[in-house]
Amino acid sequence: MSELRKDPIIGRWVIISTERGKRPMDFAPTTEHKRGGFCPFCTGNEDKTPKEIFAIRPKGSKRNKDGWSLRVVPNKFPALKIEGNLDKQGVGVYDMMSGIGAHEVIIESPNHDDTLSSLTIPKFKDVIYTFKERMIDLKNDGRFKYALVFKNHGVAAGASLEHSHSQLIALPVVPKRVAEEINGAKEYYGYKDRCIYCDIVRQEIRDQIRVISENSHFLAIAPFAPKAPFETWILPKQHISSFENTSNDLNEPLAKIFSEVLRKLDKVLNYAPYNFILHTSPFRNNDNEYYHWHFEIMPKLTRVAGFEWGSGFYINPTPPEEAAKFLREMVI
Amino acid sequence: MSELRKDPIIGRWVIISTERGKRPMDFAPTTEHKRGGFCPFCTGNEDKTPKEIFAIRPKGSKRNKDGWSLRVVPNKFPALKIEGNLDKQGVGVYDMMSGIGAHEVIIESPNHDDTLSSLTIPKFKDVIYTFKERMIDLKNDGRFKYALVFKNHGVAAGASLEHSHSQLIALPVVPKRVAEEINGAKEYYGYKDRCIYCDIVRQEIRDQIRVISENSHFLAIAPFAPKAPFETWILPKQHISSFENTSNDLNEPLAKIFSEVLRKLDKVLNYAPYNFILHTSPFRNNDNEYYHWHFEIMPKLTRVAGFEWGSGFYINPTPPEEAAKFLREMVI
Repeated sequence: MSELRKDPIIGRWVIISTERGKRPMDFAPTTEHKRGGFCPFCTGNEDKTPKEIFAIRPKGSKRNKDGWSLRVVPNKFPALKIEGNLDKQGVGVYDMMSGIGAHEVIIESPNHDDTLSSLTIPKFKDVIYTFKERMIDLKNDGRFKYALVFKNHGVAAGASLEHSHSQLIALPVVPKRVAEEINGAKEYYGYKDRCIYCDIVRQEIRDQIRVISENSHFLAIAPFAPKAPFETWILPKQHISSFENTSNDLNEPLAKIFSEVLRKLDKVLNYAPYNFILHTSPFRNNDNEYYHWHFEIMPKLTRVAGFEWGSGFYINPTPPEEAAKFLREMVI
Repeated sequence: MSELRKDPIIGRWVIISTERGKRPMDFAPTTEHKRGGFCPFCTGNEDKTPKEIFAIRPKGSKRNKDGWSLRVVPNKFPALKIEGNLDKQGVGVYDMMSGIGAHEVIIESPNHDDTLSSLTIPKFKDVIYTFKERMIDLKNDGRFKYALVFKNHGVAAGASLEHSHSQLIALPVVPKRVAEEINGAKEYYGYKDRCIYCDIVRQEIRDQIRVISENSHFLAIAPFAPKAPFETWILPKQHISSFENTSNDLNEPLAKIFSEVLRKLDKVLNYAPYNFILHTSPFRNNDNEYYHWHFEIMPKLTRVAGFEWGSGFYINPTPPEEAAKFLREMVI
């Protein structure tokens, strides 16, 4: 059983795997993926993953068999386990609880060579629809406070399997970064009676200098104070506090702008590895006037994360205005 | 001129280089260092660095000439510049100021093949002494609020030159992570009337399970909730709020435990790249009862920083109790 432990000074929770602890010799440098090896996510290998939780497949086709176009399965090596009690406890000055949670993998396509950016818009819509469906389902479990939806694309961004997939981790705590954003947004709302993200959307549309793309319902920007080169945010233009409560009518415009941004990043940055993370309201209190869901996409271009990660201090060699211009003007 | 920009939601400041912005093609994958090439930090090449700010050299030897055993020079490509006014301003919903600051390089040895862990204790003491001297000097500049002392060791940890060196960045703002720690420690102090780090030191000495090493004045531990495998903290046992005000009598025990920890990490992790960061009280209000300076050492063993960096959520595959045991028992 893994554990959730809290840093007693800054209140960050981390998952510690106590069961199969990695020893020093287990940290051999990651080698690049070899194409052509066995892939448990490819169609035909359905029996090599844990049993599917959700799938998009033609009527009449059998669960855990081929024919699907998208498939959700539990992570075979989950960071957290679904069964058990939280068992919250203090250990002297420290706080901890059991590593309870859900860890799911969204296999975005049956084809090994697809990437999220190469999917058709209908298939990209399915991925968005699936994120929502899984969140709505997991929300029913009273132990969970937050669902972290993210993607590691490319070995340097932490992907351990090449076949295109996203992940969802349902957590009994709210991640620190989300809690900080909620608090910051709440404070702004208390002062101005307006959502800070709505103010950002208005200012960015007016200024245009950091806008990458825009459609009827969504805006893609390079944020004013990005941590890293080519960091990109996608936000709904109207105020919507939680992702999973967003109307399915918006799946298509979201799929369109998300796909466009990924294809532009692919082309401008020569298919660089990236991470994206959905930031949304926690499960409780998720219909509010102060927080505004958005995706943050972070291309992995530099190797200097270690220091910045530990200090909370970032040096970014690319002004967001220049990054936005490169992306805006790239023809795809 | 670079700019300091503030994230309007969570209040993190980042440095944006507006002068020589890196374009997409500038992010070619970093190649491993080749030994034997030209090194501006080697003795004999003193004229290839900006003019020295501080040095440890025999009486009578000339500045910017050979003979030194440690040398401090301005960074040739500084993230911040020393001249100018802060020029604080709002840009709609955003806040920014000029990129004013100091960016210095501490060249720890004249010999290219030395590493910090291979230095003799007297030479390691000189490094510690130099950190303090530079901080005390920069503190006199009323524009600066914090000095960030850190080291990137190895290409994967962000070092751009192989020759062993540390860095110091004096900032007109307090880095977010430090501000969070100060606030967390203050809150604890307000509640308990005790320093939280002093409580941690007491508990860890009693429990022993996360202790890596200990001497008369210092304790090295694997923290209870580490972000990453083999993260290590070095703290003074007694309450001292600011590093630069620590008595020079403690330089020797600090050098001893720091050197020991680095040599143990080298041996256990097969000379893995690492970062260390000094966490200390900001320049103002730096004699206080709630904050406690310490070094955080973060070996760079995994590549998954991207996602964790963006979410504030960490999965650590090595329990600190196991990491501490490996390090404690390693004979060096």
